Amino acid sequence: MNKILIFGVGLIGGSIALSLKKTGLTSSIIGVGRNQDNLNDAIKLKIIDHTSQDLDKNIAEANIIIIATPVAQIPSILKIIQPYLSSHTIITDVGSTKTDVIESAREILGQQYSQFIGGHPIAGSEKHGAMAAHSDLFKNKNVILTPDQHSSLRAKEMITTLWKNAGAKVSYMSHIDHDKIFSTISHLPHLLAFSLVDMITQRSNANELLQYAASGFKDFTRIAASSPEMWKDIIFANKKFILEDIKYFENQMELINDAIKHEDEKKILALFKNASKTRNEWSQ
Amino acid sequence: MNKILIFGVGLIGGSIALSLKKTGLTSSIIGVGRNQDNLNDAIKLKIIDHTSQDLDKNIAEANIIIIATPVAQIPSILKIIQPYLSSHTIITDVGSTKTDVIESAREILGQQYSQFIGGHPIAGSEKHGAMAAHSDLFKNKNVILTPDQHSSLRAKEMITTLWKNAGAKVSYMSHIDHDKIFSTISHLPHLLAFSLVDMITQRSNANELLQYAASGFKDFTRIAASSPEMWKDIIFANKKFILEDIKYFENQMELINDAIKHEDEKKILALFKNASKTRNEWSQ
Repeated sequence: MNKILIFGVGLIGGSIALSLKKTGLTSSIIGVGRNQDNLNDAIKLKIIDHTSQDLDKNIAEANIIIIATPVAQIPSILKIIQPYLSSHTIITDVGSTKTDVIESAREILGQQYSQFIGGHPIAGSEKHGAMAAHSDLFKNKNVILTPDQHSSLRAKEMITTLWKNAGAKVSYMSHIDHDKIFSTISHLPHLLAFSLVDMITQRSNANELLQYAASGFKDFTRIAASSPEMWKDIIFANKKFILEDIKYFENQMELINDAIKHEDEKKILALFKNASKTRNEWSQ
Repeated sequence: MNKILIFGVGLIGGSIALSLKKTGLTSSIIGVGRNQDNLNDAIKLKIIDHTSQDLDKNIAEANIIIIATPVAQIPSILKIIQPYLSSHTIITDVGSTKTDVIESAREILGQQYSQFIGGHPIAGSEKHGAMAAHSDLFKNKNVILTPDQHSSLRAKEMITTLWKNAGAKVSYMSHIDHDKIFSTISHLPHLLAFSLVDMITQRSNANELLQYAASGFKDFTRIAASSPEMWKDIIFANKKFILEDIKYFENQMELINDAIKHEDEKKILALFKNASKTRNEWSQ
């Protein structure tokens, strides 16, 4: 009988709960969160069975604890968990950066860090909250787990099973590789999109610019509509790799700038061809 | 009775033809193009009535000539048209840059430049060719016309009517304002998207990076799948403003780089909030 405790019953936490219910792997799911209306929604929608009345007891009795809050809250939740953590309980998270989470978990959980497996489901949407949760959110999506030499094999297996049952494709890598990869393919693009939209608002004719912006701009800047707080936290949590990638990108833009300035049409065409071919051949 | 001659019966040229047919404003549409298969498709689909058998005569008899070829071909087409151009004929184009087109038209058409109105429909898609054309492509889309003090009022009115009948929202601005605006909201984003994808392909773990890229990357880089040739031409045609915008963007990235380096979370949060608010409030 699996008792699951979920901190943060939003889109991700709620969807994990629904996928667990669908596979019948759990006897009871308890949700913890700051927003009582959202928790009430989650109970009404049968995403969770209860909210927590006695948190210390719920922590001690849980088989799996899932931390699905914004990543900045993970250390304080680990501190709440730590004093009551039983030796059989496995903990995981769903944060978009992993080095900061793993370092907190090592520090706060000490010897019991072996019970923690860092995780990052590559799924999401602009929608928020329990109302947006659905059991198929992770179907065929990548989930990255970052176990290391201190992790227990049982913890790794339990969290792998949890995600495979949700239909996800599970990969393992180090927390450093994870943060380096996602700096380039996710954090940098977000930064560029936020940056372009902010630059446009600084122009005296910003409204005119936005009036004529069309479908290309719409897609390119969709990620600039993301949560500013969440993305500020991600950027600072992944500071080292983001700064490296900004530098790479600035060098790339300087090469392009010089090629345009010196009418090097061949160079620009080769670069556009390479990008266009890669993007056309890529499928998610 | 309106005789229309269209150079380039692709997505844009074909869709103009279909919108003209729908409103019954034209008696005959003649299509000219390099690709005979595409022209045959256009006849089969009743987009055009004929291909041109006697181009000199068709030019002389046309009421409106629409140049809907890639922008780099416009000067040579103007040179084909010029010797046979009647004083009653109005010419327009659909190029994504306007200064280069207007300068060519002034030079090649001389006194008859008054019969030319530069145009840019802000509509398109990844699809190409006559097969992709449809009469509603321009419905509620912006079309920018760039008449100036040398343009005849009749020419301006005829091309305005043509686009209004296609359901478009017509605006007028100088060719310089046009190129400045589209540098920022369209050409720069394309350059950034091409640039990011090319940068990723240079990494030794490019395949791994692309494997974990998800929906945010997908939208951000969609425009990097665009035609390399067309975008190379646009970038060089709009060189001056593109170089200015690259400079602005590099300055913006340097500010962001410094704020991250110096842990100025307040500054990054303010920038993200501004961008996110603007993007959320924007509707196309």
